Amino acid sequence: MTRAELIEFFGRVRKTSEAICEPLEIEDYVPQPMSDVSPPKWHLGHVSWFFEAVILANHVRGHQPFHPQYAYVFNSYYESLGLRVDRPLRGTLSRPTVKQIYEYRHHIDERMNVLIPSVDEAAWPEFRNLVVLALNHEQQHQELLLTDLKLLLACNPSRPVYRIDLRHPESRGETPKPACMAFPGGVYEIGFQGDGFAYDNEGPRHKVYVNDFRLQNRLVTNEEYLAFIEAGGYRDFRHWLSDGWMTVQQERWEAPLYWEKRDGTWCEFTLGGMRALDPGAPVCHLSYYEADAFAQWAGKRLPTETEWEVAARLSGARIEEGALLDLHTLQPVPLIEKEAPTTRALHQMYGNVWEWTQSAYLPYPGYRRIEGPLGEYNGKFMVNQMVLRGGSCVTPPDHIRATYRNFFKPDKRWQFMGLRLAEDG
Amino acid sequence: MTRAELIEFFGRVRKTSEAICEPLEIEDYVPQPMSDVSPPKWHLGHVSWFFEAVILANHVRGHQPFHPQYAYVFNSYYESLGLRVDRPLRGTLSRPTVKQIYEYRHHIDERMNVLIPSVDEAAWPEFRNLVVLALNHEQQHQELLLTDLKLLLACNPSRPVYRIDLRHPESRGETPKPACMAFPGGVYEIGFQGDGFAYDNEGPRHKVYVNDFRLQNRLVTNEEYLAFIEAGGYRDFRHWLSDGWMTVQQERWEAPLYWEKRDGTWCEFTLGGMRALDPGAPVCHLSYYEADAFAQWAGKRLPTETEWEVAARLSGARIEEGALLDLHTLQPVPLIEKEAPTTRALHQMYGNVWEWTQSAYLPYPGYRRIEGPLGEYNGKFMVNQMVLRGGSCVTPPDHIRATYRNFFKPDKRWQFMGLRLAEDG
Amino acid sequence: MTRAELIEFFGRVRKTSEAICEPLEIEDYVPQPMSDVSPPKWHLGHVSWFFEAVILANHVRGHQPFHPQYAYVFNSYYESLGLRVDRPLRGTLSRPTVKQIYEYRHHIDERMNVLIPSVDEAAWPEFRNLVVLALNHEQQHQELLLTDLKLLLACNPSRPVYRIDLRHPESRGETPKPACMAFPGGVYEIGFQGDGFAYDNEGPRHKVYVNDFRLQNRLVTNEEYLAFIEAGGYRDFRHWLSDGWMTVQQERWEAPLYWEKRDGTWCEFTLGGMRALDPGAPVCHLSYYEADAFAQWAGKRLPTETEWEVAARLSGARIEEGALLDLHTLQPVPLIEKEAPTTRALHQMYGNVWEWTQSAYLPYPGYRRIEGPLGEYNGKFMVNQMVLRGGSCVTPPDHIRATYRNFFKPDKRWQFMGLRLAEDG
Amino acid sequence: MTRAELIEFFGRVRKTSEAICEPLEIEDYVPQPMSDVSPPKWHLGHVSWFFEAVILANHVRGHQPFHPQYAYVFNSYYESLGLRVDRPLRGTLSRPTVKQIYEYRHHIDERMNVLIPSVDEAAWPEFRNLVVLALNHEQQHQELLLTDLKLLLACNPSRPVYRIDLRHPESRGETPKPACMAFPGGVYEIGFQGDGFAYDNEGPRHKVYVNDFRLQNRLVTNEEYLAFIEAGGYRDFRHWLSDGWMTVQQERWEAPLYWEKRDGTWCEFTLGGMRALDPGAPVCHLSYYEADAFAQWAGKRLPTETEWEVAARLSGARIEEGALLDLHTLQPVPLIEKEAPTTRALHQMYGNVWEWTQSAYLPYPGYRRIEGPLGEYNGKFMVNQMVLRGGSCVTPPDHIRATYRNFFKPDKRWQFMGLRLAEDG
Repeated sequence: MTRAELIEFFGRVRKTSEAICEPLEIEDYVPQPMSDVSPPKWHLGHVSWFFEAVILANHVRGHQPFHPQYAYVFNSYYESLGLRVDRPLRGTLSRPTVKQIYEYRHHIDERMNVLIPSVDEAAWPEFRNLVVLALNHEQQHQELLLTDLKLLLACNPSRPVYRIDLRHPESRGETPKPACMAFPGGVYEIGFQGDGFAYDNEGPRHKVYVNDFRLQNRLVTNEEYLAFIEAGGYRDFRHWLSDGWMTVQQERWEAPLYWEKRDGTWCEFTLGGMRALDPGAPVCHLSYYEADAFAQWAGKRLPTETEWEVAARLSGARIEEGALLDLHTLQPVPLIEKEAPTTRALHQMYGNVWEWTQSAYLPYPGYRRIEGPLGEYNGKFMVNQMVLRGGSCVTPPDHIRATYRNFFKPDKRWQFMGLRLAEDG
Repeated sequence: MTRAELIEFFGRVRKTSEAICEPLEIEDYVPQPMSDVSPPKWHLGHVSWFFEAVILANHVRGHQPFHPQYAYVFNSYYESLGLRVDRPLRGTLSRPTVKQIYEYRHHIDERMNVLIPSVDEAAWPEFRNLVVLALNHEQQHQELLLTDLKLLLACNPSRPVYRIDLRHPESRGETPKPACMAFPGGVYEIGFQGDGFAYDNEGPRHKVYVNDFRLQNRLVTNEEYLAFIEAGGYRDFRHWLSDGWMTVQQERWEAPLYWEKRDGTWCEFTLGGMRALDPGAPVCHLSYYEADAFAQWAGKRLPTETEWEVAARLSGARIEEGALLDLHTLQPVPLIEKEAPTTRALHQMYGNVWEWTQSAYLPYPGYRRIEGPLGEYNGKFMVNQMVLRGGSCVTPPDHIRATYRNFFKPDKRWQFMGLRLAEDG
Repeated sequence: MTRAELIEFFGRVRKTSEAICEPLEIEDYVPQPMSDVSPPKWHLGHVSWFFEAVILANHVRGHQPFHPQYAYVFNSYYESLGLRVDRPLRGTLSRPTVKQIYEYRHHIDERMNVLIPSVDEAAWPEFRNLVVLALNHEQQHQELLLTDLKLLLACNPSRPVYRIDLRHPESRGETPKPACMAFPGGVYEIGFQGDGFAYDNEGPRHKVYVNDFRLQNRLVTNEEYLAFIEAGGYRDFRHWLSDGWMTVQQERWEAPLYWEKRDGTWCEFTLGGMRALDPGAPVCHLSYYEADAFAQWAGKRLPTETEWEVAARLSGARIEEGALLDLHTLQPVPLIEKEAPTTRALHQMYGNVWEWTQSAYLPYPGYRRIEGPLGEYNGKFMVNQMVLRGGSCVTPPDHIRATYRNFFKPDKRWQFMGLRLAEDG
Repeated sequence: MTRAELIEFFGRVRKTSEAICEPLEIEDYVPQPMSDVSPPKWHLGHVSWFFEAVILANHVRGHQPFHPQYAYVFNSYYESLGLRVDRPLRGTLSRPTVKQIYEYRHHIDERMNVLIPSVDEAAWPEFRNLVVLALNHEQQHQELLLTDLKLLLACNPSRPVYRIDLRHPESRGETPKPACMAFPGGVYEIGFQGDGFAYDNEGPRHKVYVNDFRLQNRLVTNEEYLAFIEAGGYRDFRHWLSDGWMTVQQERWEAPLYWEKRDGTWCEFTLGGMRALDPGAPVCHLSYYEADAFAQWAGKRLPTETEWEVAARLSGARIEEGALLDLHTLQPVPLIEKEAPTTRALHQMYGNVWEWTQSAYLPYPGYRRIEGPLGEYNGKFMVNQMVLRGGSCVTPPDHIRATYRNFFKPDKRWQFMGLRLAEDG
């Protein structure tokens, strides 16, 4: 990546974050409706601070922080970068104001645009890698901005609309029945290897033995999930993991997040407001517990992350065809006719919804945590989480790979999360 | 009160609420840093809704609510007026926006200004009483706006300033030693009786037997309270009520709310920012537990509410001389020289800080709860609270009386609360 | 009180505690089903430790503690007597065993029986007072032993019976309608004054002004309370204090503690097992919130503690006629025919159930906390509690007085608590 | 297994549970010091109920439950077997008494001893498998009885001794430095296959690809772990997983469970009482978080469960040489001289302490949950837990296998848990 290319990439990513916030009222930038979620203004400040703490502070001689307290306010979880506001208190801060945070962003933008061309050649490769990492970091927060905003608006009794002009592609006629594509067992290699960017947790590339397996050629739909609900799925312990059953009871879950029955009809809250459920769209906003219970009920199982990655590669699934971040849609879309699934291809592998896998988020063989703050990026979270693959409708299109490992605790469901069924071959 | 007078009063109260919010950034209107506290925009909407729910809905034929969901959003605790947002969730709502809430206010203002002159004579007395109640209600929320805002700003690590141009009257020289004014025992009458406005909890006027007692002629100062701290007051269980001692441990209290030791000097957060503690100013932001412990340590006690009211009357204390709400000060002020206390008068009875009394908040003999929503105003809180008297530096000057009973749970301290010592006569 | 009398009193009290425990299995001595409640073996040890800590340690030269850790295990809340096991952990201790605790008791008995006759004359009055206090303390724990045991057994799904041979006096025919006895207003004196034993919180005797008032001539019955339930009392916020309504929702209260509807019939758990509700018996195991809500619903109110004490004295109510602790009954009993109430007398003033009053538990005028451990006995609890009067069916008959002030937080209901209605005169 | 052999096995297992309880006071059977732990009397009843619910109820025509409520009291988590006492309330039940539970046990023993010889031949294989499962279930609870009892006694400030006559094998001289045994990578088979008993979660046997790896030839010792503590391991976030670091802060961990510094010397609580720490004994009572942090600090890692199982098999480690359940020892023992480790063998693979692995507890490829109550035994727990291997000093010697998968949440440490280091080959 040349300097010019990096400057272009930098500009594009930074602008996208602001474009996401463009429809917001100032008040929308402030609240934190649950502790997993951050206020939009915090996201905007945090990603800027990341450039400052990880790049400017190390590559600009005599760098002075933009504001002495921003490190305290905008540090997320980097123990090596000092103390910080407790996560659940982010929503108590009215200051810095939105205006001040945009000033901060623009200040960082200027500094970075001066710095990128001026770094000397020897330092360039490492510097470039850091900038690319920080931009990928910002892309992750673009996804979070949208998922957090969705929750924030959904908590409001008036269910405000983020954008009234979103596209709502609808399924026409019956959704084709799913079928399975078969993959032969054997020793495969998975994990990232190559020149482009990848997170440290995607490597090292390594061998895995896989049994014969079969993967459904499309995602599970709302219609299929509704059948589970109507069959009493949320009231029958037999389908559930023990921790899942406890969660269902405690949280009184009866459907995916954002589903509401209004006058006998299932609706779902979207970034475009409340809408009738589209039966053919991929089911979304499920926890791991729900995804697993559905699979049990259906007599299938979730794929492992190895199976997913092997299948993504062998099936020739293309990222370019995925329903990834598009500021005019922002929701999963049904398969349209011409995509009618066959057993020789996998549809919807990229985008739409992150697919829960049966794999715990653990280090790959040979993985070692990096020293310093970047070592806190991924490695320290490798326990108590499950892996999701494939990206969602709010994942930037250049922010997904076959080897990309997303991870969440199994009770979380505010991300765009769904599932694809697997079975033994 | 004539119609013209009522319109004037209405206009004045409504404008004061907006004047209080004038220095705010839009972001400051949104957060709820603890569940006792409400976001400023909620206060502004709630007091307007109160006019709508209690007056417009009953006195305007075919009244249509300004917005179908505002009753749900802005109802505080009136069970008789329907469901409402759970109190601790008030800070999760970004909408309605500040602008919308001001539109709501102005809409209500218009309607009220049309309604007041047009109510027919027969309905006037009851109508007028309701409007006066609703205005007193708004005055209470003016005090809460300022106390809640203070907490909101204080929770921010940068301790933002509400107004940089506040007056800071400072004590000069030594604060005169306090002395006691003596009052003879006997049967007294306390409680409200008369024509003006008073809350239902201030009556009926009734007889109480009081022993001889003595009351200090001024409030306890920061300097006196500091002596308690430095004598280890927060580490010695002997001074404390059992529930108070538990609270001190759990909350790790070591000083009043808003006190911070910076570089060895005690400072306090004010609406004008962090300032060095003024030794002669009345101590403020104490819980009942702390006020009681200080009194125990000092070998005195808190007065009862009867003693306070009898003394206020017998001493001839004048509301006009009280340090009540003044948008240019907003903090307790020290006694100045010419006020040097004597044993023939009581200083600082009105304003500065609410004075904790030793009296639980209970119904007066003969008190009956009103039916309907207004019955929920005071009566249903008559348990688990202690009475405070005299008003504070953020109480509107026409919103205090000798008979006024404020009440809070004994662990609260975010109001402008302090104490005056008493002893047996 | 002579030495012989004190020895007799000592022996009698100490034996009663053991008689109460006589029907227990060893396992019954151990659990702590909620943190308000203590395991029976803890009660037995604690009252013995009290003699050791307050008397033996101070009056026996070179006194060696029976066991170095018993002070830690058996101290309840005396900060001045050192660290202690956290209250909610009392049920985690299997040791000391029941046998060891009885050995401890008998050791203390021996020491006390040696000490009482040998204290020299000069020290006698103070010493005697301490012993009498410690015996009254043990009597309080006798009541707690029975109430805690009742809760412990009631938590067991098999609802085990404490004693199968208890007497169950039953109401015959209809309970006579209650009527009111009237008392004239004026200045009265209340509080203890005299030679016998009383707690410090019962004094000083002082004057109180009381309005004319009327008191019902008997306790509220199960039948009357059932009418409140059946009228939807637990589902109508209008009757409730705000904190009470919150508690009803959170705890899902629908009836007094220990009431269960079995096959359409209301039953209640007693120390003699599950029994059909006796309509004529005094209603029992109500919180203050429930007592107050019932009174509101009935258009009456609770008496103040002053009214109760004045009425007890003026009506000539006799402790001797009260249904107090009798190891063969242990439950409230209905008025029997010959007691048919008149308006010239008050029935059931002593015993049966503690009567909730509308008075907060606060110091009387002139009250000062004692220094040292005994100062922690009563004074430090004077906040957040309501006063109950009159004793219950598990209060030792020589442990009640017209001036006796019991106190509990308003949400508690595992004591034998009920109510009598009052109204303005 | 013949009927005679089964009867012998049955008798042996049932007697061992009682032998474990033999040193207890009756009071020790009752408390539940934390919700993970069950009272000893509950364990004794539960394992008997398991025979009744799973075997007698299905194989004895017209079987009448011993007691109608025991299913409610002694069901642990079997949703298919009906409602049950909430787990954290087990310690509130004083009844059934210990005596009644022993009667229940002996009743079950009699029934089973009658039933085993009489089952008809056709039903025998399935019946036998059920009995063997139920006996293995009881063996698991024997381990829990001892670990729960240890916690129960340790919570008591007097730290009571379970048995004063336990053997305390001590390390003599220096513990030999550990070395690594190397294993070549490749495709291996792991998981149970064969005729004897194994849990469903140990199969199916399946292929796994493993990289070259090396395993230390002995467990980590107290001495080695102490070096981690003294190097500030508990205060340096860099070694810890994020969830682990949070746990360390919240729980204020500074050492393994049961370690106490007394007069400057590290001691540990054992079933034989408080003892000075033996430097050469395997470190024990570590959470996964601590085991992982230690490994990070040491520049190594934990093995995967596959590596452990492959190494156990290839190294020829023998269960017979393991320090497994021996009622006269009940604690981990140091390697003695003649066992001085070599790089051609692995010591301490079985017994002493369960070894935390880096593997999440997940279904093996091809695993399916059984239908009915036994399907709840293992499958429903396959999330949020980590696998441990090898058994401990309180695991019955015939209750461990190379394929045995134990599992706990990563913050648990009251089991006999420790670690062995691994590294890439």
